[in-house]
Amino acid sequence: MIRRGRRARSAEAPTRKVDYHNLRNPFPPMNAFTEDRIEALHQASLTVLEDIGIKVLLPEARKLFAQGGARVEDEMVFIGRDMVEAAIASAPKSILMKAAAPERDLTLELGRLVFQPGAGAPHATDLVRGRRPGTIRDFREMVQITQAFDVLHMVPPLVEAQDVPVELRHYAMTEAELTLSDKVPFLYSRGTPQVRDGFQMIRDFRGLSDAEFQAQPWCYTIINTNSPRVIDMPMAQGLIDFARAGQMSIVTPFTLMGAMAPVTVAGAMTLSHAEALAAITLTQLTKPGAPVCYGTFTSNVDMKSGAPAFGTPEHFTASLVAGQLARRLGLPWRCAGGSAANINDAQAANETQFALWGCLMAGATVVIHSAGWLEGGLTVSFEKIITDLEVLQMVAELCAGTPASDADIALDALREVQPSGHFFGATHTMERYQTQFYEPLVGDWSNFGTWTERGEVDANHRAIGIWQEIVENGTAPAHDPDRIAGLSEFIARRTQEGGAAPES
Amino acid sequence: MIRRGRRARSAEAPTRKVDYHNLRNPFPPMNAFTEDRIEALHQASLTVLEDIGIKVLLPEARKLFAQGGARVEDEMVFIGRDMVEAAIASAPKSILMKAAAPERDLTLELGRLVFQPGAGAPHATDLVRGRRPGTIRDFREMVQITQAFDVLHMVPPLVEAQDVPVELRHYAMTEAELTLSDKVPFLYSRGTPQVRDGFQMIRDFRGLSDAEFQAQPWCYTIINTNSPRVIDMPMAQGLIDFARAGQMSIVTPFTLMGAMAPVTVAGAMTLSHAEALAAITLTQLTKPGAPVCYGTFTSNVDMKSGAPAFGTPEHFTASLVAGQLARRLGLPWRCAGGSAANINDAQAANETQFALWGCLMAGATVVIHSAGWLEGGLTVSFEKIITDLEVLQMVAELCAGTPASDADIALDALREVQPSGHFFGATHTMERYQTQFYEPLVGDWSNFGTWTERGEVDANHRAIGIWQEIVENGTAPAHDPDRIAGLSEFIARRTQEGGAAPES
Repeated sequence: MIRRGRRARSAEAPTRKVDYHNLRNPFPPMNAFTEDRIEALHQASLTVLEDIGIKVLLPEARKLFAQGGARVEDEMVFIGRDMVEAAIASAPKSILMKAAAPERDLTLELGRLVFQPGAGAPHATDLVRGRRPGTIRDFREMVQITQAFDVLHMVPPLVEAQDVPVELRHYAMTEAELTLSDKVPFLYSRGTPQVRDGFQMIRDFRGLSDAEFQAQPWCYTIINTNSPRVIDMPMAQGLIDFARAGQMSIVTPFTLMGAMAPVTVAGAMTLSHAEALAAITLTQLTKPGAPVCYGTFTSNVDMKSGAPAFGTPEHFTASLVAGQLARRLGLPWRCAGGSAANINDAQAANETQFALWGCLMAGATVVIHSAGWLEGGLTVSFEKIITDLEVLQMVAELCAGTPASDADIALDALREVQPSGHFFGATHTMERYQTQFYEPLVGDWSNFGTWTERGEVDANHRAIGIWQEIVENGTAPAHDPDRIAGLSEFIARRTQEGGAAPES
Repeated sequence: MIRRGRRARSAEAPTRKVDYHNLRNPFPPMNAFTEDRIEALHQASLTVLEDIGIKVLLPEARKLFAQGGARVEDEMVFIGRDMVEAAIASAPKSILMKAAAPERDLTLELGRLVFQPGAGAPHATDLVRGRRPGTIRDFREMVQITQAFDVLHMVPPLVEAQDVPVELRHYAMTEAELTLSDKVPFLYSRGTPQVRDGFQMIRDFRGLSDAEFQAQPWCYTIINTNSPRVIDMPMAQGLIDFARAGQMSIVTPFTLMGAMAPVTVAGAMTLSHAEALAAITLTQLTKPGAPVCYGTFTSNVDMKSGAPAFGTPEHFTASLVAGQLARRLGLPWRCAGGSAANINDAQAANETQFALWGCLMAGATVVIHSAGWLEGGLTVSFEKIITDLEVLQMVAELCAGTPASDADIALDALREVQPSGHFFGATHTMERYQTQFYEPLVGDWSNFGTWTERGEVDANHRAIGIWQEIVENGTAPAHDPDRIAGLSEFIARRTQEGGAAPES
């Protein structure tokens, strides 16, 4: 569908059509620091890599760093400024991500805007079934919801399918992503055997040769460094495997100020930037020109309890600094929303939207956790996906721009309607009213009396019907039945072989 | 108080101090239209005033327009471009609003940022007492809440005190504003007798001579034109009375696209701009240099039901256009947030914050309805004032900027903490942790287990205790007891004389 409005329209009524897929960020970028302080921060990050070093647990990765000229002492790697600058130069500035159909392809470059719902949560929650450990059913349903809204552009690892054994989980998740969606799919980096399985499933399901698959990125992974200053085994392996196969890594140090990063925005971003540059360097040492996305996820903690916080002023400012650094590099980059609230209340809505505006004004290319994320990422809420989607759709409307022709200025209508009159029946209005305004997804604009008569249903409870309809009646995209059968056969065979356990 | 955090701090702990009073907008202004289309819109507005005309119901106002060179036909006034441009030139570009104390004074000019809570509502609501027609008790309590937060800068007409007879209501409201607050007070323009009473109360309570009172603005009114193209009796009289007394008018056409304004953003803003310019012109014809604030409140309606909507993409874009027009004029200006939701749920939070960002990116000087406004202005919610205040305080934090010195970049801390270590105990952290981060007002960052043990209280219900504490234990600013007594005597005398009925 193009977009979803709350009400069904009659067959005759013209439909409002707005392109929610190809978004360009219309918001002027905001700087938190002066350009010379950004340069100082960048240089400090290079000093971290060159003098203080980063611990790299995977021998193969240390070997690649050493071959590239880094000094390696035991597990510590010291990466020279020249190596980092060479990697920044060879990393692509524009990346075409391939989906099942060209209209779902995504160009990632500075100035573009891509949304992902909340991801990586161990729990799922909704108002019908309650909060529970995530299951493959939850994952499949959330893929359906992601598929149903044009303003969500990539499929992320929404919730963990904890009811599927770890050595088989990647089959179930990838099958769901491929069959229930035609958008760009995600693969976890949990060791080469799982990654190889994933590449094979996507290659065959898309009907590609090895060469065709490797020529362009058809999927992506997310790489979290282990802050401070560690790249662990599966993350390093993922960077290498994805770069080698021409697939995309999104690098995201998770640097909470005061916990795994310095208590200041400037210090936390120095660490985040250093770690991101180390990971980017590893991709370019593996294969110059390999697609890689710069990223950050920097917020603060409650200094009394250590609890992480999101959608705070510090989170917002860190996003702005990351945007300035990304523009310094010229690379597409990922930023993150989020909320620490435990339910989808006013706090949850406010934190998520506040964090979103930080990402938007930072000029983020990809905004992850932009819908549904609760409890600092421990839960994705079905209803919150829907209520947050309202905001994303409204942002997409702003991306479309607003006409300002003489006909829009409407001097004729202003002449036509008398003082104290109204414009409901004006010719200018009649010609436009059916398609002029954004129609809300879950927002209810009825007056208090009507709303009371209808049972005083809040946004959260109105959202239930919206996700249920998608889950129950949603149709999967039309995929080639032979490829679906092939995918099933592959999974059956690999399952019989014992699958592939995650590596750590 | 400087600002309010949720938790009490021990006496020894250093307190975080951020100036929430003198805010400058740190957000880069966003343009919705190109500069040449803004100029076309401005010229179209001048054509509306010159050729199509505006209906002015007050004879004295028509006389002032005529003396200034306007063509007057019956009640219709046709205002030449030159008259409007002269008014724009004479209107002050910077206005110092005087409060009870210099530290509460406000400078209104482009680049400044001032917040007001929701205003003008017939109803009040809270979770303890329910939704009801507003009373003087509600008004007094909301003045206390407005006083308690530095991020709220002016006292607006929060809710209508419907339990006080109309001829005495302005005494009760002004008394509450003056005695329970030391911030800039509001007066309704409901005819000269009430306005004269209000001026006298403020003049005497501030201990001023007539000349001192008239030399600077000590209070403000809000002027809503009757769109389309009408300035009614009390509004025109208010513009004249306030200008004559050197007090401030905030001009706000309320132009809902598709209802009292064209269905397009460009058309609605053309009308809004024309009406605002007519009102500004009247103030300058009355007294050149009289303080006046440009303003707009332009959103859309649901074209099926006619219900007004707020916090929509169209509302956001109209705010941006208003900001461009205000910069064209060089005048301080007022913009508005708002929500059409019926309770303080995710919709309410999202609409209010979305509208807020429209105001912020439009460069609004004054943002009204920035906290507490529900049902498109029919109700102000005690709890929603609190949950929206969280967002305003976070915006104020962004206004303060973030340090980026070498000490903040923290290379020493990055050297000190080992890979996979943490920064909780680092020297750099210990020196800063007590004052580094914004502390939430109503946000709860505890984890799901703790939050569940504490009774699963949502933000709305946590807000109850916050406003109750202010209402029950809040102390009024220290005012001169003689002036309080004088105010009571004035009100007693005027009450005995029958008060002053509103005029319409």
